[in-house]
Amino acid sequence: MARIGIIGSAGRMGQAIAAVLAASTEHECAGGVDSGGDVAALADASDALVDFSAPGALEANLHAAIGAGIPLLIGTTGLGEGEMTAIDNAARAIPILQTGNTSLGVTLLAHLVEEAASKLGPDWDIEIVEMHHRMKVDAPSGTALLLGEAAAKGRGIDLASNTESGRHGHTGKRAEGAIGFAALRGGTVAGEHMVYLAGEKERLTFTHLAEDRAIFAHGAVKGATWLIGKAPGRYSMKDVLGI
Amino acid sequence: MARIGIIGSAGRMGQAIAAVLAASTEHECAGGVDSGGDVAALADASDALVDFSAPGALEANLHAAIGAGIPLLIGTTGLGEGEMTAIDNAARAIPILQTGNTSLGVTLLAHLVEEAASKLGPDWDIEIVEMHHRMKVDAPSGTALLLGEAAAKGRGIDLASNTESGRHGHTGKRAEGAIGFAALRGGTVAGEHMVYLAGEKERLTFTHLAEDRAIFAHGAVKGATWLIGKAPGRYSMKDVLGI
Amino acid sequence: MARIGIIGSAGRMGQAIAAVLAASTEHECAGGVDSGGDVAALADASDALVDFSAPGALEANLHAAIGAGIPLLIGTTGLGEGEMTAIDNAARAIPILQTGNTSLGVTLLAHLVEEAASKLGPDWDIEIVEMHHRMKVDAPSGTALLLGEAAAKGRGIDLASNTESGRHGHTGKRAEGAIGFAALRGGTVAGEHMVYLAGEKERLTFTHLAEDRAIFAHGAVKGATWLIGKAPGRYSMKDVLGI
Amino acid sequence: MARIGIIGSAGRMGQAIAAVLAASTEHECAGGVDSGGDVAALADASDALVDFSAPGALEANLHAAIGAGIPLLIGTTGLGEGEMTAIDNAARAIPILQTGNTSLGVTLLAHLVEEAASKLGPDWDIEIVEMHHRMKVDAPSGTALLLGEAAAKGRGIDLASNTESGRHGHTGKRAEGAIGFAALRGGTVAGEHMVYLAGEKERLTFTHLAEDRAIFAHGAVKGATWLIGKAPGRYSMKDVLGI
Repeated sequence: MARIGIIGSAGRMGQAIAAVLAASTEHECAGGVDSGGDVAALADASDALVDFSAPGALEANLHAAIGAGIPLLIGTTGLGEGEMTAIDNAARAIPILQTGNTSLGVTLLAHLVEEAASKLGPDWDIEIVEMHHRMKVDAPSGTALLLGEAAAKGRGIDLASNTESGRHGHTGKRAEGAIGFAALRGGTVAGEHMVYLAGEKERLTFTHLAEDRAIFAHGAVKGATWLIGKAPGRYSMKDVLGI
Repeated sequence: MARIGIIGSAGRMGQAIAAVLAASTEHECAGGVDSGGDVAALADASDALVDFSAPGALEANLHAAIGAGIPLLIGTTGLGEGEMTAIDNAARAIPILQTGNTSLGVTLLAHLVEEAASKLGPDWDIEIVEMHHRMKVDAPSGTALLLGEAAAKGRGIDLASNTESGRHGHTGKRAEGAIGFAALRGGTVAGEHMVYLAGEKERLTFTHLAEDRAIFAHGAVKGATWLIGKAPGRYSMKDVLGI
Repeated sequence: MARIGIIGSAGRMGQAIAAVLAASTEHECAGGVDSGGDVAALADASDALVDFSAPGALEANLHAAIGAGIPLLIGTTGLGEGEMTAIDNAARAIPILQTGNTSLGVTLLAHLVEEAASKLGPDWDIEIVEMHHRMKVDAPSGTALLLGEAAAKGRGIDLASNTESGRHGHTGKRAEGAIGFAALRGGTVAGEHMVYLAGEKERLTFTHLAEDRAIFAHGAVKGATWLIGKAPGRYSMKDVLGI
Repeated sequence: MARIGIIGSAGRMGQAIAAVLAASTEHECAGGVDSGGDVAALADASDALVDFSAPGALEANLHAAIGAGIPLLIGTTGLGEGEMTAIDNAARAIPILQTGNTSLGVTLLAHLVEEAASKLGPDWDIEIVEMHHRMKVDAPSGTALLLGEAAAKGRGIDLASNTESGRHGHTGKRAEGAIGFAALRGGTVAGEHMVYLAGEKERLTFTHLAEDRAIFAHGAVKGATWLIGKAPGRYSMKDVLGI
């Protein structure tokens, strides 16, 4: 049983990870800490740490993981350049996976979209649709943009200068090579993303549906477990999937 | 076999209708006329007429149908107030169905959307998505707006003042009671419309997919045939479906 | 604030209803009882009762509701003829809603499918697809059959003698007027149902997606609240929707 | 302009290819032959040949292509072992692409499904759904099986012994590692294939929709054009996509 320690255990993600660990027969929760807690003691009791706390806690967290010689998965958002450098330095001593999206499905989808965009070429039009709950205040979603970046990379184009988002009114015909975005809002939708590739008389649609936000907790646990025993270095969710 | 005469037989819709009639075992094509043709003779040889010509030809077409005492389905677009009055007058003598959309599926969908919006109430958020080929120059599509009107009617609200179309950037949370629109463009899509009703932890989606534009020809033939033997008056595609 | 009392509060549905009530600003939980608890006292403290307990408790529950003069929503499964008669009798004194499916979305969908099947007629082929989690042991789902019954009723045909379920191998062409069923199993899917109506070159698809099983709790609360103040009698979820 | 010659020009595919060439600005039709026609003369006037005729004509077709030193795309079905050997031999002299499915979208989808199945592993359940017109007499479709083979290859399992097709009645829970199939029939659907990968609280769905059968003609033209200038050898549609 892999022992996973949770930094930021009182947060939304921390609680979701604790629930995943409680239900697992292959992992156990080594404990959790929050602001002011003893990270070093937690690290000593863990085989791997997950960190969904705050940028200000990062340095102490890296220090604790290095001290215990165990890997660290970092899902904390809002990291700046300084934090990234600190992570690079720590990754010389321990395996570290830092990511903004721990969903395995989305990670794979981005990879497949890049490949599809690359292979099918520019006469297949790409459209990205996302649906989220009614309280979301911006569009497109971060995941939609991540999928758009993957498509643009596959096409070998720049996303920013090839985006058509939020069509309304007299739009003119579709720009050649454009990547379109549309945002739906409603109900309690945890997150649905659709990538269309529309060619001559045929169409491919790739859909990712999150049944609930627990998938990010599942992915974090999977990622942290995968790190155990790896060589020091920086890893991504793609590595977990072997992409 | 019902004999259907085509006014505007050289146009895109006229040709599509001729193809439908040629493949049918229940109808036959009574012939076709275009600008300058003898509509009266066509009317005499027909059990019903379909008119997909031009507003300028309407008066002569109504006259011919009345002369032969047969029904007329009018799909001509761009009709003004004068033409509508002429149709009302003619409808005292013969059965007339004038419509901007002859698809049976869309006609039914609009009816069901109105009912769903009415029954589920305002805590189910409504979103309307349409996808069309890459050459379409405006958004949302006429059919999307027609579906939006049906939803608004079901809700008892005004569509224009409750529309959220083309979300992009910082949108803020969804306005209460809003009806959202999103437009996708790509490939050769003949037309796909999706209406979402997103409630608390459950979601209904109603989709209409046009495999090709021939559906409008099929609907026109069905409508014209349905008119045969009806009392004089104005009818709609809803009447054909018995809604 | 409507005070809802829960009979069977320790069960899966009872707990889900308690969670819905706890999160609501329009309802409050009047308390809960289980086997051996004091239903009469609960009834006295409630504006309406929901019963997701066991058939054996039904008589006492009806008695308590009548004693307090409040409505009762019964979602208990496995009721026999005797229990149905007892409900009929009790419904002379109080409003009662007994149902096997408290989802508002499914209730509405069944109604719309009946209407669509009725209006479109037999040249539109009907297919019903359901997807559920990998542990489900039978197919098609009860909800799929409920939707099939609605379609058959709309068509004016008998479902049992017009079913094509589980196609595999040399099936021959589709039987005229058949209603097809297909069952998908996988992952943790709470329940997705799709009804296809496939006509000549156009297709309608109606989808209901349950994000989680809490929708049945939401529907139960909505149903119980709706009953408050109604005349004695038997009601269904259709009545709650005003269908 | 690439000059494409059509062997079997009177057949359904031959006619569809002629239509694609007629509408193209990058290709022209070098002519067509059918049973008894002069293939050698057609080959002399072509940059590449497509063959959708009959197995009995294969030897003469290979001979003509070799004589003119031009590539050949073979879409003829029902080829036996002898014909395959003849193709292998001819491929020492000219580039040849023999395939049972010329759709670019399906070719890519099969590739992506293999990759997804490989990366996500056995705790993501795979289901394959196909929908075709009401006249189709067998299930699952050849393309569904092709996608199933791709999934099984990605998983490293044998498809035949891991298939669950046509669930109905008491099925028991889903077999671990099974690949499920379901077949829908209705209307005039040219072909829709959906591959579901259902994991813990998240789901990927890959859909291919054929708007009409012309896609196979488009793919054949693209394949034949791609062959021009290639080294002698046997190629597949995957090579055309660079997979």
